[in-house]
Amino acid sequence: MRTTQTSGTDALVAALLEGDPRALARLISLVEDRGPGYEAVIDALYPRTQTGGAYRLGITGPPGAGKSTLVDRLVPRFRREGKRVGILACDPTSPFSGGAVLGDRVRMQSLRDDEGVFIRSLATRGSLGGLSEMAHEVSVLLEAAGYDVIVFETIGVGQVEIDVMESADTVVVVLTPQSGDAIQALKAGLLEIADVFAMNKADQPEADRAAQALQLALRPDMTEEMWIPPILKISALQDEGIERLKDAIERHRAHLGARGLRKKREERLRAFLRRLVEEELRRRLWDASGTALLDSQIERIVRGEQGPFRAARELLQEHEKPR
Amino acid sequence: MRTTQTSGTDALVAALLEGDPRALARLISLVEDRGPGYEAVIDALYPRTQTGGAYRLGITGPPGAGKSTLVDRLVPRFRREGKRVGILACDPTSPFSGGAVLGDRVRMQSLRDDEGVFIRSLATRGSLGGLSEMAHEVSVLLEAAGYDVIVFETIGVGQVEIDVMESADTVVVVLTPQSGDAIQALKAGLLEIADVFAMNKADQPEADRAAQALQLALRPDMTEEMWIPPILKISALQDEGIERLKDAIERHRAHLGARGLRKKREERLRAFLRRLVEEELRRRLWDASGTALLDSQIERIVRGEQGPFRAARELLQEHEKPR
Repeated sequence: MRTTQTSGTDALVAALLEGDPRALARLISLVEDRGPGYEAVIDALYPRTQTGGAYRLGITGPPGAGKSTLVDRLVPRFRREGKRVGILACDPTSPFSGGAVLGDRVRMQSLRDDEGVFIRSLATRGSLGGLSEMAHEVSVLLEAAGYDVIVFETIGVGQVEIDVMESADTVVVVLTPQSGDAIQALKAGLLEIADVFAMNKADQPEADRAAQALQLALRPDMTEEMWIPPILKISALQDEGIERLKDAIERHRAHLGARGLRKKREERLRAFLRRLVEEELRRRLWDASGTALLDSQIERIVRGEQGPFRAARELLQEHEKPR
Repeated sequence: MRTTQTSGTDALVAALLEGDPRALARLISLVEDRGPGYEAVIDALYPRTQTGGAYRLGITGPPGAGKSTLVDRLVPRFRREGKRVGILACDPTSPFSGGAVLGDRVRMQSLRDDEGVFIRSLATRGSLGGLSEMAHEVSVLLEAAGYDVIVFETIGVGQVEIDVMESADTVVVVLTPQSGDAIQALKAGLLEIADVFAMNKADQPEADRAAQALQLALRPDMTEEMWIPPILKISALQDEGIERLKDAIERHRAHLGARGLRKKREERLRAFLRRLVEEELRRRLWDASGTALLDSQIERIVRGEQGPFRAARELLQEHEKPR
C-alpha cells in the first residue's frame, strides 16, 4: 500500500512539474491534510525551487482595509506582463469561530476565469501544523509548478498573519485613514515588517493627515542605504494609484536585488528547517514516558518538594539518558 | 561572588515573605532582567504558592475599550473587602515601536497612594523570554508576598496578550459597541477565552444591538453544566455597572470552585514546566556545533542534493549521538 501511495504522489509530482493545475490542487490538499507522503513531496520539490523562481508578495493589514480588492486590482497588472500568479488567501480562523462569519470574499470573476491565475484559501482546520508553515510549503508547490508571482493575502493582523508575511520578499501593509488602523498596525508590529504602505480609501478627507502621521511614526533613525517604506495613497475600489503601488513594489524588489532575494530565501529555509527539527524533538520529548515523568515532577512541585527550574533540569537529564 | 549573590537573594526572598514591598519590587526587577539567581528565587517561592492563595483576574480587549479605567474602578471594590491587590499591566510592545507612543496611562491617584495595591508594568524589553512567562513568574512573587487578587491587564488583543490570559482564573473581555471591536475579538480568539464580557461605553446608542450580536456569536452548543459567559453593560468612566460586573466575576469563581481553581493552577504549572524544558532543549539543539550542522544541511538543500524533511531527520540523529 505504501509503495502505491508513493508512486501515486510521484505521478502527481511529475504532472505538477509539467504545469497540470489539477495535480497542483491535489498536492496542496495533501500538504494541507498532512496526508501520507506529503513530506516526500516537499522533499522532492523543495530543492527545485532553490534557483529562484517565484517572487513572493505579502499583502496584510487590518480587517476591512481592502486587501482583497487591492489584490484583485494588482494581479491583472502582473498578468499583463505575462506572469503567472498564485494567490494564497491565508485565514488563521479557529475551527470554533469558523471562517464563514466574516462572509465569503467576492473575487473578481476575471481572475477566476484566468488560467494563469491560481487562487486558493488556506486555513488551519484543526491543529495540524501552523498556518505560516503551511503557506510556506504550499508556496513551494506553486513555485515548482512554474508560477512567477505568489501573493500571500491575510485577513487580519494577528501574530499568525505576521508569521505568514515572513514568507514574502516584499510586504505591502494596507491601511485606511481610520485612526484605529494606524494604532492597530503599530501594536501588531506591522510598521516593522512593511516594505510598502498602501493608504487605501485615499478619497476620504483624513487621508493626508493619516499618511503624515504614519510618516512620523516610521523609524526615524534610518540611514541612507536602508529602504524607506514609501506610503502610497490609493483607492482600490476606484482602481486609483495601483500602478504607482506596483512601481513601488518593483522598486523594492530591485532594491533587494538577486543577493537580497537569495538571502531571504535562505532565511526562510533556515527557519523552516529549525521548526521541523524542533517539532519532532518536542514530539519525542513528550511521548508517553516523557509525559509520565512530567506528571511526577508536577506532583512534587504541588507537594512543595521541588521548584520548577530544578524539575526542568531533572526532566532534561532523564531525556538525555539512552533509552 | 556567586554565594554572595545567592545569599543576597535569600535575604530578599525572606523580606518578600514578610510583605516588604521594596523586596518585592527588587525581585520583580531581577525576574524581568533574568538576573543572577532568578531561577533559585522562583524555585524557592513557587512551591509556597501551591496551596492556593491569590485569585487571578485577566482583563483584555481591543485598544481604547477602556480596560485601564475599568481596572481602576474594579480594584477599590476588592480593597473594600480588605483584599490586597497586585496589578500587572502587560505590554508586549516591541523595543522598536516603544511603549511611550500610546502615551503613559493615567492611573487613579487613589490606587497609587494605597499601600494595599501594588502596580507594575511588565514589558519584554528585548528578547529575554516571553511576556506571558514573565507575567506568570511575577504573579508567583505577588502571591508569595501575600496579595489576594492579581490583575493581569493587557493593552491589546495580540497572541501575546491571549497567552498572558492563560495565567488568569477568570478572564474579562472588555468591548465597546463599535462594530470593529466584536470582529477583532472574534478574530483574536477572545470569544473562546472570555468568562465574562464587559460591554463598556454602554451609554452609546448601539450598545444594545452590539450586546445582542455578541450573544448570537457565542458558542451555540453549550450544555447546561457549562459556564455561559454573561454580557454586562457597563460604563467604566461613569462608574456604572461595575458592581454587577464584580458579581459576575465572583459567580465565575464560585462556578470554578476549589477543584476548578486547583485544576487551572496545575495546568499553568504544566505549561510553565514544559516551556522551561523546551527552551533549554532548544538552546542545546542550536549551540555552536548544532548550528554548524544546520548550516551544512542548508547548503546541501540549496545545492539541490537534499530535501528539508530528510535534512531534519539527519539533524535529529546527529543531536542524539552522545557528544
